[in-house]
Amino acid sequence: MLMLPTLAHHPRIQLVACADPRPEARIRFTADFDAPAYADFGALCDDKQVEAIYLATPHQFHAAQVARAADSGKHLLVEKPLAVTLAEAASMVERARAAGVRLVVGHSHGQDGPVLAARRMIAAGEFGAVRMITALNFTDFLYRPRRPEELDTAQGGGVVFSQGAHQVDVARLLGGGLVRSVRAATGAWDPARPTEGAYTAFLTFENGCVASLTYSGYGRFDSDVFLDWVGEMGMPKDPAHHGTARAALSGLPDAAAEAALKVTRTYGAPGQPPGLPPAAPPAFHNQFGLVIASCDRADLRLTAQGVEIHGDTTRLLRKTPLPAVPRGEVLDELCAAVLDGALPLHDGAWGMATLEVCLAILQSAREGREVALHHQVAPKDD
Amino acid sequence: MLMLPTLAHHPRIQLVACADPRPEARIRFTADFDAPAYADFGALCDDKQVEAIYLATPHQFHAAQVARAADSGKHLLVEKPLAVTLAEAASMVERARAAGVRLVVGHSHGQDGPVLAARRMIAAGEFGAVRMITALNFTDFLYRPRRPEELDTAQGGGVVFSQGAHQVDVARLLGGGLVRSVRAATGAWDPARPTEGAYTAFLTFENGCVASLTYSGYGRFDSDVFLDWVGEMGMPKDPAHHGTARAALSGLPDAAAEAALKVTRTYGAPGQPPGLPPAAPPAFHNQFGLVIASCDRADLRLTAQGVEIHGDTTRLLRKTPLPAVPRGEVLDELCAAVLDGALPLHDGAWGMATLEVCLAILQSAREGREVALHHQVAPKDD
Repeated sequence: MLMLPTLAHHPRIQLVACADPRPEARIRFTADFDAPAYADFGALCDDKQVEAIYLATPHQFHAAQVARAADSGKHLLVEKPLAVTLAEAASMVERARAAGVRLVVGHSHGQDGPVLAARRMIAAGEFGAVRMITALNFTDFLYRPRRPEELDTAQGGGVVFSQGAHQVDVARLLGGGLVRSVRAATGAWDPARPTEGAYTAFLTFENGCVASLTYSGYGRFDSDVFLDWVGEMGMPKDPAHHGTARAALSGLPDAAAEAALKVTRTYGAPGQPPGLPPAAPPAFHNQFGLVIASCDRADLRLTAQGVEIHGDTTRLLRKTPLPAVPRGEVLDELCAAVLDGALPLHDGAWGMATLEVCLAILQSAREGREVALHHQVAPKDD
Repeated sequence: MLMLPTLAHHPRIQLVACADPRPEARIRFTADFDAPAYADFGALCDDKQVEAIYLATPHQFHAAQVARAADSGKHLLVEKPLAVTLAEAASMVERARAAGVRLVVGHSHGQDGPVLAARRMIAAGEFGAVRMITALNFTDFLYRPRRPEELDTAQGGGVVFSQGAHQVDVARLLGGGLVRSVRAATGAWDPARPTEGAYTAFLTFENGCVASLTYSGYGRFDSDVFLDWVGEMGMPKDPAHHGTARAALSGLPDAAAEAALKVTRTYGAPGQPPGLPPAAPPAFHNQFGLVIASCDRADLRLTAQGVEIHGDTTRLLRKTPLPAVPRGEVLDELCAAVLDGALPLHDGAWGMATLEVCLAILQSAREGREVALHHQVAPKDD
């Protein structure tokens, strides 16, 4: 539901088929796009009209589906996290390489315009070396409707896999990519939702940069106050809506009812308004909380409009051009890779390295010690 | 200069003598208070009128002066950090104990009203266990005028000793005091001021709480924006003054000129307006940047007015009564200890434990590994 308007309205994308196990989604897709909708993923892979597949299935299905699609010669955009284990991620990278298809990971907030703009400033050395990255995000993630597996860490549930993947991606893009070590703690403070709802992590990079990453999805403090009440999706947000995510859940009798509530928000569900949502030009960028990159000669703070540059004597906002459609940057990256032969920033190796950091956060928290990393890669264009 | 109005106007304090090596300070003190001013610290200790001494000398003098004062039976309020080494701190604690005098460490932002209020809420279990503390502060500390030793870490210079002492104190008060381990990195990014100007630290506590502490004194991003532009001292601050600290330094030829500039801001220096500054009731509390304590049932965010309580469905500000004179809380603590026999929260053992965390931040950064702690104490009234 988040990516469909972006896919439908992006100038270089045509939606020619889909696969979904839910009949109502297939009916709706065919009505909206006059195109085939398959119940079986393999049938989608065998469709000769399909050039690339956007994979937004639950994490645990990614590895097998990427293998199947790659073997059919389809390029892939895979939702983060790329996978739930490093072995799976490595197999996906290898399978795509062997098949000669592009594998891009996203949407990630590492594709937000202000992140990419700050990354370019840092890569160009405009303000000297990057030294310290400070990121925090306090949301209500844990209280949005979930399927049971989304609350089971072993199946990729919890905030480290889903939200850490964003924050780590942003930090790696700004910090040079090569994380050397992770020390972290996680929090699972609500017995009714027994997965990680929070974490804090201390990262060192090969280039000497360090990062402090903090996330809470427990729906109390809301760090969107630091983004002038622009929400994660770049839409103005009403601070008075505090607590609505919990309230929506509180009347539900059990996990089945919660999963059913989630289904009502999916594509094709009864009650969804007909037709495609318009792709109104976004008012602001997507954002992922407070992010400050401290360099030798300036602190760069990401906002929903661009990059605030806090220098020795000046403070200014360098605005970043908005995408034509919300989240369009991820499709720009996919199209450049598939149609123009560009090397994607968020390729499989990059997504695997981000996953390695997320897994290290979980391991460090579990074992109470620092974890060294071995699968890190630098951003492609550095 | 910061504490003098507080001392002069606190209802339970009478200033009866001082010691200062600078003649202009002594002349001014006698004029202001009609009381003796000694060139020699020992003479102050021998003054029978003196019941307690506020020690605001450079860090490296603290140990010998505490010993001298304690041996003369004087109670002590010692500026943080208590000392520069654990051995010195331990000797001070022992010397005060042996002499039967009270040793209080302050002023520290751990004595700010909102910190103490949040601590009481946590100690009372009002919102369940404290799980995660998030603190960051971005200031222009490194560009305020300094004596050369304040830029030499070996002599207690840099932000870890001077500013970490505040942030660690706050985190220990909220987190239960008993820090188990520290992993940290420090930054010394300006060759012209070759000491730590920044750090980020990951702390674990015996009770399972964790803390993420980040500080930069490099004068770029200013986190007072998160405190509604109330400055550290509880005064409204003009955001347009960005960069003034650096600008004031930039014209100076050398370290001697900078030290001379610092002297012009000290008590009794030529050009200082005559008479005592009025003790206007403060408009806001002192503050030390963004501080969020995440508990089982609420996130507590400290502000310059009190404690914002972000619960599951409600968000409210619990205002904290302002002190009668700015920073009066530290003298309340001293007077309660000396006059009422109370056990001070910020006693020598507490200050030594805070120093141990600061030293561990430096050690962890130097050695690139996690450091275990051995001298931690819980807050007295827990």
